[in-house]
Amino acid sequence: MKIFINPSRDSWQEILARPAVDHSGLRDTVSDLLKQVKSGGDKSLFELTRRFDGIELTDLQVLDEEMLQAEAAVSPELKKAISTARQNIEKFHEAQQVDDSLITTTDGVKCWTRTVPVEKVGLYIPGGTAPLFSTVLMLGIPAMLAGCTEVVLCTPPGADGKVHPAILYCARILGIEKIFRIGGAQAIAAMAYGTESIPRVDKIFGPGNKYVTVAKQMVSLENIAIDLPAGPSEVAVMADETADPAFVAADLLSQAEHGTDSQVLLVSTDAGLIEKVKAELAKQLKVLPRKKMAEQSLLNSRIVVLRSIDEAIDMINEYAPEHLIISCRDYGDVGIRILNAGSVFMGPYTPESAGDYASGTNHTLPTGGYARVYSGLGLTDFQKKISFQEISKEGLQNLGPSIMTMAAEEELEGHSMAVKLRLSKISNNKK
Amino acid sequence: MKIFINPSRDSWQEILARPAVDHSGLRDTVSDLLKQVKSGGDKSLFELTRRFDGIELTDLQVLDEEMLQAEAAVSPELKKAISTARQNIEKFHEAQQVDDSLITTTDGVKCWTRTVPVEKVGLYIPGGTAPLFSTVLMLGIPAMLAGCTEVVLCTPPGADGKVHPAILYCARILGIEKIFRIGGAQAIAAMAYGTESIPRVDKIFGPGNKYVTVAKQMVSLENIAIDLPAGPSEVAVMADETADPAFVAADLLSQAEHGTDSQVLLVSTDAGLIEKVKAELAKQLKVLPRKKMAEQSLLNSRIVVLRSIDEAIDMINEYAPEHLIISCRDYGDVGIRILNAGSVFMGPYTPESAGDYASGTNHTLPTGGYARVYSGLGLTDFQKKISFQEISKEGLQNLGPSIMTMAAEEELEGHSMAVKLRLSKISNNKK
Repeated sequence: MKIFINPSRDSWQEILARPAVDHSGLRDTVSDLLKQVKSGGDKSLFELTRRFDGIELTDLQVLDEEMLQAEAAVSPELKKAISTARQNIEKFHEAQQVDDSLITTTDGVKCWTRTVPVEKVGLYIPGGTAPLFSTVLMLGIPAMLAGCTEVVLCTPPGADGKVHPAILYCARILGIEKIFRIGGAQAIAAMAYGTESIPRVDKIFGPGNKYVTVAKQMVSLENIAIDLPAGPSEVAVMADETADPAFVAADLLSQAEHGTDSQVLLVSTDAGLIEKVKAELAKQLKVLPRKKMAEQSLLNSRIVVLRSIDEAIDMINEYAPEHLIISCRDYGDVGIRILNAGSVFMGPYTPESAGDYASGTNHTLPTGGYARVYSGLGLTDFQKKISFQEISKEGLQNLGPSIMTMAAEEELEGHSMAVKLRLSKISNNKK
Repeated sequence: MKIFINPSRDSWQEILARPAVDHSGLRDTVSDLLKQVKSGGDKSLFELTRRFDGIELTDLQVLDEEMLQAEAAVSPELKKAISTARQNIEKFHEAQQVDDSLITTTDGVKCWTRTVPVEKVGLYIPGGTAPLFSTVLMLGIPAMLAGCTEVVLCTPPGADGKVHPAILYCARILGIEKIFRIGGAQAIAAMAYGTESIPRVDKIFGPGNKYVTVAKQMVSLENIAIDLPAGPSEVAVMADETADPAFVAADLLSQAEHGTDSQVLLVSTDAGLIEKVKAELAKQLKVLPRKKMAEQSLLNSRIVVLRSIDEAIDMINEYAPEHLIISCRDYGDVGIRILNAGSVFMGPYTPESAGDYASGTNHTLPTGGYARVYSGLGLTDFQKKISFQEISKEGLQNLGPSIMTMAAEEELEGHSMAVKLRLSKISNNKK
């Protein structure tokens, strides 16, 4: 770990710099894959799965039988945990429902908004080193709450051609029926263009490897919306002398075990904490199954000691971490001064893993400094808003002159005429 | 205009198809411009303005003196109109402020959201055929209401090197102080990377020509957010036998005059209306200053006669227009069945131009079918949400086992350990 003691402000940018992620070299490869699926449809999906995953699929769609097998394969204990997580995520996301209000802006001019679901959404659930069934909950629950009419889920098959039972179980309890065993850029292409089996969607959600990320970027330049720019996961821990070194170490490791590119930052106002955290890291690493991965990502991690909480808050706001754990005495006061972060974990008994799984907040969050401008995923990402206006005759008499004056100044006489003709009719009818 | 009488459903897709917009050929040119500004800063902005606009600038930033001159140059009548529009836009956008609620998802587990402004935003206001000062209101008002701390405005200079007075006036009354006379892809680059004069921003808003559009797309793949994918403006008018042909024609023309690529669609359940609208179009075109442009865009426009309002609603939802005017007897009932549209204009006395300028709704809306998935611009586009959670000891005892079970299944033992260590401390302290 790299340790910085009271670094000057002009060195912060360098200390906080994230490794550059440049996937532009993949664009040609991914572009070819997209074209292949666009023209080849299902056939190309079978071929690409054979080529990349070494699997000879018989069906793309997961059928009822496999769903039932999955349900049987998930332990009662895990089902209970999933049920708890689901309830909490539902409660938190339900509260994001916004009431549409009607405003009279000028007498006779009513304006309002109606919130409606994005009709067709695609959820991508990565395979890889761990079966991320929790992501099914995080994407599927807001999709279902929003009332999306078509929810498609794509996830790569395992070596046996099957999808992990917990992924299928989560999809099933949420009522997601269109599940396809296909991964990578080809899955993104299938949802973006549609194939014989896989419906075309309007918006694609979910994390993935660099091919998935580039494919999402590229289809977003065509006619498809995507959720968030994806990048390596990050945690920042803000700690003072009240922090428990064992908790801090565990929080850093729970991020570091995600992958060798995970970003870990500890900002402390207590220099004495550092050695204790290092000792705890060494101790806890010994028993961690993903020790090698965590060690690797800790090499790139940073510990910064600063003089005051004020400085620490400034540094966190400059870094804009995906996850922020505030392990300080006055964590409540600190929390309200955080302006740039994806999700914040307040106080000693709120580990990041709570938000990853079950507290209720969404774990799809902005990485790479995007927390400066993006929010984590929520209900509204599965909705859109339509604005409405209704103007009465009196309303147009009130507002019309302003519209005509502005239109004339912008040299758009047709815009003015649409008002003028109506006003003439109103005054003629009055005569 | 192309007229379709009772076309079968399987022909709708073709009838509704928009001309393909492919700007990918511009990417190399724009990429060069971006690089040039990134490395050359202000100097390159002067050079590029010389090259593209033929103007030798002395200052990039608009200084106080020019602001005062602008204020004097705007007529009292226009000031009054702008004031009315501003009030309405403020009222409608203020109502979009969302209360952040706190939810207890499990006993001892509190989750909440805090809405904060995007700190640094850039507004692009195009020059070109008309001085779009109304767009200053539509972008600037939500930026100011959200509380963005840095608001940068770029707009191309006129032939005299000056910015249109109405643009400066609107910026001034909103309190936007950082105004730069620079246009095109180079303006987008300046706001994306920052130069000596122009601050780097986190998110860029505003319409523009194809170079601006491509530049926004390209910087959005780097580290900058953008508002909406931009495309040619569109209106769809839904009319039945109660519609006034003169109003319908005026509404079609007020869209058609925007540019030769404007999209106009009339869907009517009354075949008799068509000839009357055509006659009105011919009549009104004669007196329209932008006649040539409007005629050109009418060539690509479509009139569809359908058998029922139900069919018409289905067609509109399939088309997903940017603007929709509902000129039908039961426009209220029709309005609530619209699922895909940017902004809807209800009834005979609500022309699109009302929303373009002054009703209060935002005129930055999704085009090209994006209304299926994007909303028009609003307050929330200038904000982000941070999620928070705070778990008490009791809360972690309640939720911890579920977190550990799920983490173990995803093979993330570090996540589990962060909970386990805390639970051990809680139970040790109780002993």
